[in-house]
Amino acid sequence: MNETAYAQVRVDLVDLHRVLVQSELVVWTAGNVSAKVGDGHFLIKPSGVAYERLTPESMVLCDLDGHPVEAGLKPSSDVFAHAYVYRHRPDVGGVAHTHSTYATAWAARNEPIPCVLTAMADEFGGEIPVGPFALIGGDDIGRGIVETLAGSRSPAVLLRNHGVFTVGASARDAVKAAVMCEDVARTVHIARQLGEPLPMEQGDVDRLYDRYQNVYGQ
Amino acid sequence: MNETAYAQVRVDLVDLHRVLVQSELVVWTAGNVSAKVGDGHFLIKPSGVAYERLTPESMVLCDLDGHPVEAGLKPSSDVFAHAYVYRHRPDVGGVAHTHSTYATAWAARNEPIPCVLTAMADEFGGEIPVGPFALIGGDDIGRGIVETLAGSRSPAVLLRNHGVFTVGASARDAVKAAVMCEDVARTVHIARQLGEPLPMEQGDVDRLYDRYQNVYGQ
Amino acid sequence: MNETAYAQVRVDLVDLHRVLVQSELVVWTAGNVSAKVGDGHFLIKPSGVAYERLTPESMVLCDLDGHPVEAGLKPSSDVFAHAYVYRHRPDVGGVAHTHSTYATAWAARNEPIPCVLTAMADEFGGEIPVGPFALIGGDDIGRGIVETLAGSRSPAVLLRNHGVFTVGASARDAVKAAVMCEDVARTVHIARQLGEPLPMEQGDVDRLYDRYQNVYGQ
Amino acid sequence: MNETAYAQVRVDLVDLHRVLVQSELVVWTAGNVSAKVGDGHFLIKPSGVAYERLTPESMVLCDLDGHPVEAGLKPSSDVFAHAYVYRHRPDVGGVAHTHSTYATAWAARNEPIPCVLTAMADEFGGEIPVGPFALIGGDDIGRGIVETLAGSRSPAVLLRNHGVFTVGASARDAVKAAVMCEDVARTVHIARQLGEPLPMEQGDVDRLYDRYQNVYGQ
Repeated sequence: MNETAYAQVRVDLVDLHRVLVQSELVVWTAGNVSAKVGDGHFLIKPSGVAYERLTPESMVLCDLDGHPVEAGLKPSSDVFAHAYVYRHRPDVGGVAHTHSTYATAWAARNEPIPCVLTAMADEFGGEIPVGPFALIGGDDIGRGIVETLAGSRSPAVLLRNHGVFTVGASARDAVKAAVMCEDVARTVHIARQLGEPLPMEQGDVDRLYDRYQNVYGQ
Repeated sequence: MNETAYAQVRVDLVDLHRVLVQSELVVWTAGNVSAKVGDGHFLIKPSGVAYERLTPESMVLCDLDGHPVEAGLKPSSDVFAHAYVYRHRPDVGGVAHTHSTYATAWAARNEPIPCVLTAMADEFGGEIPVGPFALIGGDDIGRGIVETLAGSRSPAVLLRNHGVFTVGASARDAVKAAVMCEDVARTVHIARQLGEPLPMEQGDVDRLYDRYQNVYGQ
Repeated sequence: MNETAYAQVRVDLVDLHRVLVQSELVVWTAGNVSAKVGDGHFLIKPSGVAYERLTPESMVLCDLDGHPVEAGLKPSSDVFAHAYVYRHRPDVGGVAHTHSTYATAWAARNEPIPCVLTAMADEFGGEIPVGPFALIGGDDIGRGIVETLAGSRSPAVLLRNHGVFTVGASARDAVKAAVMCEDVARTVHIARQLGEPLPMEQGDVDRLYDRYQNVYGQ
Repeated sequence: MNETAYAQVRVDLVDLHRVLVQSELVVWTAGNVSAKVGDGHFLIKPSGVAYERLTPESMVLCDLDGHPVEAGLKPSSDVFAHAYVYRHRPDVGGVAHTHSTYATAWAARNEPIPCVLTAMADEFGGEIPVGPFALIGGDDIGRGIVETLAGSRSPAVLLRNHGVFTVGASARDAVKAAVMCEDVARTVHIARQLGEPLPMEQGDVDRLYDRYQNVYGQ
């Protein structure tokens, strides 16, 4: 990627943060998206900056240890979690993080979201797992994400008492997973309020996942 | 219908997909509307295209077997369900599909929505039924829709572990049914959270349905 | 009032229907507002017209029996309920009707909303009562509204299995009551989901109501 | 501060009331924000004025006893609560008040919101406490706020059967606390609907609070 490509990624990241806001996945400054650029860097939201004030230039370029490589704004407080994911998952091109309401409610109870909807089989290929509680600022959150996703087809992971991290081939895919994670977290929650959702057979989950990953879209 | 009429239908379909978004019935690309044109074709949303990028030209013209009749974008992954409905219900001019939250929660539990609101009697003439679980990609979903609606006055049907399909004389009527389906699914759900809604007498349901279908509007 | 005053009332009514939409109290065409003009007439929403298509000219002028006095659009299907209220409550200058979600959920269970919030004491002066089930099209709904409100300070009444009617000195006051009715219906519902709200003393309810009605505002 | 500074504060206050509306923390006119200016005054919303009609000039300048110091609009009905807070908490530069739904639901049950989310530890440093029931119009509400916050790191306090008051170094900080209070009130409520959230260890709460207050942001 060259300088110009980074410019486009910066524009896309502003737009993707706007999607988080419009999808009501974040309040105030509590959520962030990053995108890998080139082999050894990623761009991420600056810390504590209001979404409506984000500009392409405000996105912070970091190396894969999570350190900014240019003078300017400080990166998101979650930068080390993003960095850990990029170091250990070379297939990942984008990471998103939210405290979206329903997904975080499952995380507060330390419960995975069971796969009882066709839309959930499509995108997540099974349940959305919960990783451990971890403090911000080091490798603990990143390790929790990577280890929990290792046993799953899901691009989303809940972290206990915390919120949601999602990964994707691109930042847009990660944001899509964050949007759909909240959607299924909400629907399954509401279904369970008045009884038990019917289970889906694993074979059906597999067939739906395979079709959505390989046939759906243009 | 001629070429010009199709152009208007395409514009209307873009607008109706916008209604799905504004009514919060869909997230990302998970929902679609189609409209029958002429005797043997229908127009439908392209697969996996974001709602804000839909244009009149992007709508895909298909025959009643669900196959596109022009080069261009692939139709919605749900195209065969729409096609089945048009083949077996010549009175239907429009079909809508969503995973709207509350309706899908009833579907996840395999429960019909009981008719306990006057607005529900008006539009649905009784309970909103639930059809079987069916995999996407063939005639199974379409057959589930048509067979379940056969025993009902409702223009909406829930599909188990999946979501909602609605039908109407026009695409706009189908979207109206989708909007009202979610509205009553939500209100009845919330009513049941703190007790049991009072039942309505069948005679009253019949009188309300008759009046709304025959007197209401201009 | 003269011709010019009616023009302003028509503009205000379009705006007040927009408030119903923005406050998420209505979907599709299911809600309406009217305003008394002069001693013997009122203006009301036309039947089945989408909110975004309402114009000042589309509002229907009716006499106090609910009959339109000009050629043009048909009035709201609820016109006879509005007319009954104006005939029996000369102090009322505006009426609003919605099926707003949480209020209608209380109505579906035939439960009044208990007064457990200071904001509810301010506006409603006590519980929001529930009136009887009644069919649309004659005097039954209007009579249910007037008789139920007779024993109450509340400008809002729930009708069993149906929805909400509110009254006010003006149409704007009626819409305000509809907005606040849904707000307190929602808050009290949510409070009760996890336990019992604490009761308020009648003396405190009286003091809050008196202050809000007589001191609040400009 | 000089005349020009007040002009900017007035503009900011209009903007912050807009944030309350956009964050869905208030309906109609039920919520207000104030900002201290100079040592002995504060600016506050006028009573009963719709949010969309607020202008910088409409904000009411009051002394620390809550009395307006200029001819013009009457201040918010909650002015004496704001004044009491400023008199007893010289560190406070802004106060916000809402009846936001989920927080008010906890208040209706007289229950503090337990600290079971990292985002809650960040902003509130522990549970969000509940103060006593108090009538509007004198010092009682202000005293309830100040005394309840005295034993807490939280910038937010629930008042029984009433709503939320928040404080901050600036009006913007107070509004931020109001936004995050409703967000965590909602998430913890929803978590508890289907079980018990896992507790967090006090040491972790302390570490998160310390980091967020001292490291987060630019």
